[in-house]
Amino acid sequence: MKLVTYRASVEAAARLGVIDGAFVVDAGRLGLPDSMLGLIEAGPAATEALRAALPAAPWQAKLPLANVTLLAPIPRPKKNIFGIGLNYVEHVAESAKSLDTSKDLPKQPVIFSKPPTTVIAPGEPIRHNGKLTQQLDWEVELACIIGTRATRVARADALSHVFGYSVMIDVSARDNRRAGQWIVSKGMDSFAPFGPCIVTADEIPDPQMLDLWLTVNGVEKQRSNTRHMLFKVDELIADISAGITLEPGDIIATGTPEGVGAGRTPQEWMKPGDTIVATVEGIGTLRHPVIDVTNL
Amino acid sequence: MKLVTYRASVEAAARLGVIDGAFVVDAGRLGLPDSMLGLIEAGPAATEALRAALPAAPWQAKLPLANVTLLAPIPRPKKNIFGIGLNYVEHVAESAKSLDTSKDLPKQPVIFSKPPTTVIAPGEPIRHNGKLTQQLDWEVELACIIGTRATRVARADALSHVFGYSVMIDVSARDNRRAGQWIVSKGMDSFAPFGPCIVTADEIPDPQMLDLWLTVNGVEKQRSNTRHMLFKVDELIADISAGITLEPGDIIATGTPEGVGAGRTPQEWMKPGDTIVATVEGIGTLRHPVIDVTNL
Repeated sequence: MKLVTYRASVEAAARLGVIDGAFVVDAGRLGLPDSMLGLIEAGPAATEALRAALPAAPWQAKLPLANVTLLAPIPRPKKNIFGIGLNYVEHVAESAKSLDTSKDLPKQPVIFSKPPTTVIAPGEPIRHNGKLTQQLDWEVELACIIGTRATRVARADALSHVFGYSVMIDVSARDNRRAGQWIVSKGMDSFAPFGPCIVTADEIPDPQMLDLWLTVNGVEKQRSNTRHMLFKVDELIADISAGITLEPGDIIATGTPEGVGAGRTPQEWMKPGDTIVATVEGIGTLRHPVIDVTNL
Repeated sequence: MKLVTYRASVEAAARLGVIDGAFVVDAGRLGLPDSMLGLIEAGPAATEALRAALPAAPWQAKLPLANVTLLAPIPRPKKNIFGIGLNYVEHVAESAKSLDTSKDLPKQPVIFSKPPTTVIAPGEPIRHNGKLTQQLDWEVELACIIGTRATRVARADALSHVFGYSVMIDVSARDNRRAGQWIVSKGMDSFAPFGPCIVTADEIPDPQMLDLWLTVNGVEKQRSNTRHMLFKVDELIADISAGITLEPGDIIATGTPEGVGAGRTPQEWMKPGDTIVATVEGIGTLRHPVIDVTNL
């Protein structure tokens, strides 16, 4: 299933829907949870029940997709979003040239976090504050959404804890690293475009064979495949859960491939007026304008 | 007011209380919000109403403090906890000797985060997993709790956004920094003992004149005063809120003074069986055992 969080009108509350061709089927109207976190927290049986209820969905539960507004699939994550740095081989090399990172491949996943307040909906503007950054960069990533609590999970069991997959842009203000810490550079408001949907894990049995790419103003800047990840999704879950309990609804942004602005010659940065478009194969596309908020 | 989150019995739900001598007054029984986040989110008027209702609290709203169990004041923060590194001058020096940080004073606050899952209640054990760390360290800190939303706040207005203050131990596994990122080393389950109460900001008009200290097995390891902070609480709020919106209930752990285990000669680390006691003047004391969870 392709699951979305949507508003039927500007005044309406956010609700959980399932994409069905040109329609969105409202989960709450089928007697299932009416929010994405509600569905995830209700466990795998609720997701199965939603799947089973879809074929008999009455017309009252269906809305034309063109008439609704999509929010981020989880508009407000319950915990920080875990990000993974330096997780594609070629990106390790370009980062070592242009940033302050090592040219050696990391021996363990490099983990950081983005606050829940970074999340924006598909189409919402990425905020460029010229007082804070002159080096705003793009990073297309496969996002993994946890379905069931994971503490000290073995790699072989790790994917059974995944609810589904989505797309995230890990926006990064490269000139805001402080004593090496990345949370400010990656943690400002609007720095996590997220969506447009979550594809349930049953439809992506192998998350390590997905093309992903990103364009800026129509020009391709990143193109790779998740098979080039240094630490695969199952390794990331096993590694994080060794010390940090992963909970239903937690998000892991699994790292970006080569082609970021910092790694280009000359370097390129996002500017107000740009349009950033990021896609992961089989999931969907995020399209975001960059706006100037320096004097807002 | 000294506000606590407490359970009246092992089966009871967490509730908001106010310390009144040897009693805790239940806020919900006075018609006020029954949780700490509920009170904070209800805004300053609700806090004033609680204060005004206390003198006339009926006996049914009072429980002997000795009969209740305290939880962390906010048992489950809504966002990541912001931590501040290298924020006391002497600690910058000891860190440069023993860790991989610079000996120069940071020019901007060094910010990292701890997941909400790090938080434990007063008295709960700090978990020592020998498979993950041999360098578990202590850090006593003044914690600042945000009361009202703060975006691009000027330093002069910053303290008006503070709800109150508490104590946090920023437990750190020094051998778990990865590419310099601190979230794993500071983010594991149980790494944020928090409490025992929140003292409302009106009772701490100047947060930069509080003694704070920490003992391990009764031996004093840290003692300083918050006047030695490099970036004061108002500067931290102004700085973070420039790019990251602070929300009601957000927590800033404001950094630790000198005397951590990593900075000692020879280095010292927390071991299972140790008792860590941390105090901030005028707020209270946290007392935590360290237990071995390697094979749990």
